[in-house]
Amino acid sequence: MAFDPKALKFDDKGLIPAIAQDAETHEVLMMAWMNAESVAKTLETGKVTYWSRSRQSFWVKGESSGHVQELVDFRYDCDQDCILVLVKQKGPACHTNRRSCFYTAVRDGETVELMSPMG
Amino acid sequence: MAFDPKALKFDDKGLIPAIAQDAETHEVLMMAWMNAESVAKTLETGKVTYWSRSRQSFWVKGESSGHVQELVDFRYDCDQDCILVLVKQKGPACHTNRRSCFYTAVRDGETVELMSPMG
Repeated sequence: MAFDPKALKFDDKGLIPAIAQDAETHEVLMMAWMNAESVAKTLETGKVTYWSRSRQSFWVKGESSGHVQELVDFRYDCDQDCILVLVKQKGPACHTNRRSCFYTAVRDGETVELMSPMG
Repeated sequence: MAFDPKALKFDDKGLIPAIAQDAETHEVLMMAWMNAESVAKTLETGKVTYWSRSRQSFWVKGESSGHVQELVDFRYDCDQDCILVLVKQKGPACHTNRRSCFYTAVRDGETVELMSPMG
């Protein structure tokens, strides 16, 4: 069946959450937001493109930092309200220079830092 | 540092997205929402507890289906606005009886079903 980005369910701001997962290691790298146009751009260009809520503009991941996400597979969930992109991540995904944004754990009520910035 | 669920950033509905990932296979299973109390309950009980937006009530995952998610690790991201729970998933995570909710891919403009309901 042909895919139409408009078949996805966007929230009242026209956005849908998108989870980026490393296609090889399966590490969850980050979560950001897309609108219908950034979904279309991601599929057309093969470069993962979010919608920046703070800047209110397209955010081609890595465009300024070089830490691009090359699309390997584009998936969405049973409710059509969340996207999972499997990616080839160049360098760190996180703006703190860590491989993943999910570097803080809560264990026995305390926060624990799981990874350091990449050298 | 002691963790306080209120340190997380909740949206204008008091919710934060939570990604569930299989702790062993690293498969992304589903995404749902938590509020501050469901975060606290998840950490206290070790049973992943979401907030059901449709029912406006706590949703102890698997409470009725038996397909529980036992918490293995609780993490959050650099912006404190997304949670990643690593879980031991019993049976299917998806209400369609599939292991993961992300069973639909878009390839060459067509939708492709990647997995079947569990037997």
